[in-house]
Amino acid sequence: MSCVLGIDIGGTSIKAGLFTPEGKLVEVKKIPTGAIDDEKAFAEVCEGLSSLVVGAGFLPDDVSAVGLDIPGPVDDGGRVGMLPNIRLDPDGLKTAIKHEFGKAALAFVNDANAAALGELWQGSARDLSSFVMVTLGTGVGGGVVTGGKLVCGAFGAGGEIGHITVNAGETRVCGCGRRGCLEQYASATGIVWLYQQACKADGGEHPKPEHATDTITVFDACRDGDACAERAIDQMCDTLGLALAQISCVIDPAAYLIGGGVAGGFDLFAERLAASFRSHCLSTSASARILPCSLGNEAGMYGVAYAALQEAAKGE
Amino acid sequence: MSCVLGIDIGGTSIKAGLFTPEGKLVEVKKIPTGAIDDEKAFAEVCEGLSSLVVGAGFLPDDVSAVGLDIPGPVDDGGRVGMLPNIRLDPDGLKTAIKHEFGKAALAFVNDANAAALGELWQGSARDLSSFVMVTLGTGVGGGVVTGGKLVCGAFGAGGEIGHITVNAGETRVCGCGRRGCLEQYASATGIVWLYQQACKADGGEHPKPEHATDTITVFDACRDGDACAERAIDQMCDTLGLALAQISCVIDPAAYLIGGGVAGGFDLFAERLAASFRSHCLSTSASARILPCSLGNEAGMYGVAYAALQEAAKGE
Repeated sequence: MSCVLGIDIGGTSIKAGLFTPEGKLVEVKKIPTGAIDDEKAFAEVCEGLSSLVVGAGFLPDDVSAVGLDIPGPVDDGGRVGMLPNIRLDPDGLKTAIKHEFGKAALAFVNDANAAALGELWQGSARDLSSFVMVTLGTGVGGGVVTGGKLVCGAFGAGGEIGHITVNAGETRVCGCGRRGCLEQYASATGIVWLYQQACKADGGEHPKPEHATDTITVFDACRDGDACAERAIDQMCDTLGLALAQISCVIDPAAYLIGGGVAGGFDLFAERLAASFRSHCLSTSASARILPCSLGNEAGMYGVAYAALQEAAKGE
Repeated sequence: MSCVLGIDIGGTSIKAGLFTPEGKLVEVKKIPTGAIDDEKAFAEVCEGLSSLVVGAGFLPDDVSAVGLDIPGPVDDGGRVGMLPNIRLDPDGLKTAIKHEFGKAALAFVNDANAAALGELWQGSARDLSSFVMVTLGTGVGGGVVTGGKLVCGAFGAGGEIGHITVNAGETRVCGCGRRGCLEQYASATGIVWLYQQACKADGGEHPKPEHATDTITVFDACRDGDACAERAIDQMCDTLGLALAQISCVIDPAAYLIGGGVAGGFDLFAERLAASFRSHCLSTSASARILPCSLGNEAGMYGVAYAALQEAAKGE
């Protein structure tokens, strides 16, 4: 009997899921970490993983595949690029895990791409051979799947849909150094900014977001009929629909899956977004579906487990 | 010994190439046609193809694959969509060809996609697993290849890169009914229009294009130092570079291949286009190469022959 590990690497902890090869999630374990860049840290991670495996009744050699979800670029060859937001030595961790689980195939996958793979394996995209995962969080990420396969890109920037230009006239600079990126309008940060701009222009009394990514306040205000919140959500849907229309001119996917924290307001913006997409896209692509994700925060964990399983299958 | 036919379907004639399975073009034959939508027309096409095969020393049963290049959408399942520019009954022609060459596998491919496949098989993209073919002709077409496979799209609009929005403020309507499409600036028609606008604004004496797609006059004027021609080509490169940057945010290909009639001026605009692309793209993707195609007008013929061969391999 074999099992698979899917590991989500965050800034202060990792979350590991133990799966059956068929994709059933057996158990989840959170392991607190600091920087994962020396032997001591590698040992702690491996110890935590081992106790998860053994606790569920498996032996270390039963682990056939280990997938790692990385918050940074990974190219088509599985090479990890710059990781600006966490301290991680991917090669060191890889060696330590290979030592701990001698029979396991390993795979690194970018987080947004991992979420796409998770939805493809066990989520909303199970019956789709082509789709784009749209992750609306602090930023906007994406994962592109065509012919049932992830498109990581020659340089690891496949699915960087948050940086599609949607407003050439923008003066604010995006995190990437360019201007007018989708991320500046359709991320949680973007939506709150659009709302605050609308409130400033209006001048009246409006609910106040508690922080820069507090879309809950904006969505609640919209549900209560606040015109500024309505306006912000309309603008968000307009830019996102425009960006999806550009994607359809390139790969024309069967569907778009909306995930990330902002997807909590899916019921609120789904219809506006679909209308915006249809107003911007080629008529040929107008029947592409726009769906919510179904695995939530666990999509990445599922996705890397699946990627590692595929890696294991290649080696057989 | 087997052979393969690659057939380019045009408005007034078809061009058929006879290939070895290894991709050597043995002979080309042009067959004049009218509408290809009744038994008489199907018979004439089949007769022409048979005489090509027999003339090259093969028997009809030696033909292992026949590919047809279609000027319209073909989806991931090989289904042919609306054909606005030619009179062709694809199903009738398919039946007739199947009857004539009983052992051949058949494949229909959209013309821009076919050109991409041709370059992948025997042209500039031979060593590339991901690239986008950019066909700059009367309009702008494209072919997207990732993981060595063509992306036709769920609705057949994969590679419709001529309809990426590059100027949201455009007032002129594109052939697709939308505004500000790449095709309005980077096609032969677009370049001549940009040049004429520049000449009008300038008011001085400038070489006159002979027709709406006469880019040769514009390119020659540019080589002679005409400022309006320079301006038009700069604008063309700016919009095209912007569009390619959007594509890189979706699939991040290793290279872009420039083909079609406008590629005749590749030496003139290659550097400006590369500079424009690099100014618009994410830094991650900046080393994507921009290359000229190498098979010229025959790329499509090569490409459909290759697609049909792949179809034949599936059936084995």
